[in-house]
Amino acid sequence: MRHTLAVLTENTPGVLTRVAGLFARRGFNIESLAVGVTEHPHISRMTVVVDGDDRVIEQVTKQLHKLINVIKITDISEDQAIERELVLIKVSAEPATRSEISEIVNIFRAKIVDVAPKTLVIEATGDEDKVEAIIQLLKPFGIREVVRTGKVAMVRGSKVVKIAEEAV
Amino acid sequence: MRHTLAVLTENTPGVLTRVAGLFARRGFNIESLAVGVTEHPHISRMTVVVDGDDRVIEQVTKQLHKLINVIKITDISEDQAIERELVLIKVSAEPATRSEISEIVNIFRAKIVDVAPKTLVIEATGDEDKVEAIIQLLKPFGIREVVRTGKVAMVRGSKVVKIAEEAV
Repeated sequence: MRHTLAVLTENTPGVLTRVAGLFARRGFNIESLAVGVTEHPHISRMTVVVDGDDRVIEQVTKQLHKLINVIKITDISEDQAIERELVLIKVSAEPATRSEISEIVNIFRAKIVDVAPKTLVIEATGDEDKVEAIIQLLKPFGIREVVRTGKVAMVRGSKVVKIAEEAV
Repeated sequence: MRHTLAVLTENTPGVLTRVAGLFARRGFNIESLAVGVTEHPHISRMTVVVDGDDRVIEQVTKQLHKLINVIKITDISEDQAIERELVLIKVSAEPATRSEISEIVNIFRAKIVDVAPKTLVIEATGDEDKVEAIIQLLKPFGIREVVRTGKVAMVRGSKVVKIAEEAV
């Protein structure tokens, strides 16, 4: 099963290596990883998507907890969660095809963020399926370059991934 | 100086650890990291933001080139680049404050993606300054949780970060 883990860590050099290393040593390929600071500047939050057997993921989670600078790990795969990623897509565009591309962009509530004589850059957000769908629809025009952020996730409603007070 | 590196790698376990490890061993703190697949499913692209002396970054880049599974590194800090990240923000919201929050969301062309009796979840995209600005404006309402993707970047215009044909 696919798991989405929210990993809160101290924002210090090396912690990312230790977390990624733990998955690598067990042969897990991290499908998606996004790292950014939280509302507390010295605390980072990683969103890690890995595919693996539930029991093995549980073991890995326990080992993650033992790592220096790791504050908290929450598996939010089971919860009702909002999942989003951002993608920038550079697509070939001639004057003749620009309006057709523009229509696709509107349908997906995406944005054109750069216009050049022969290319457009499109910014889109959504869950994985939506991002895949817009890439597929733009393929016939000629995709030049794609860069994706990896997924972030947050539980719906008022529930939060809490940081213990003493860690803040 | 702050550097934004686009690192193309094969999509295999361990490559992330090796890349992150190289930065950690030199004491660099990775400020932001985003990893996702590219237009070629077996090739991933990492966007790494690090702060460091130009000469040292150049040395690190040379060492990255020598790593197994690393295909290409491009420093796009100097180029005219589009920089974007995505943030999900859970904010406290009562019926009385909801319309005020909604106005801020509209100004930033952000989206409300979840509504609960006492909270809202907002999705916003932009460069770092814009993301910081919306977080600051929402602070007085009570921020419950923030998750950010880290930055992705793409050079403006038709220029692309090319993958050598034999690697594809």
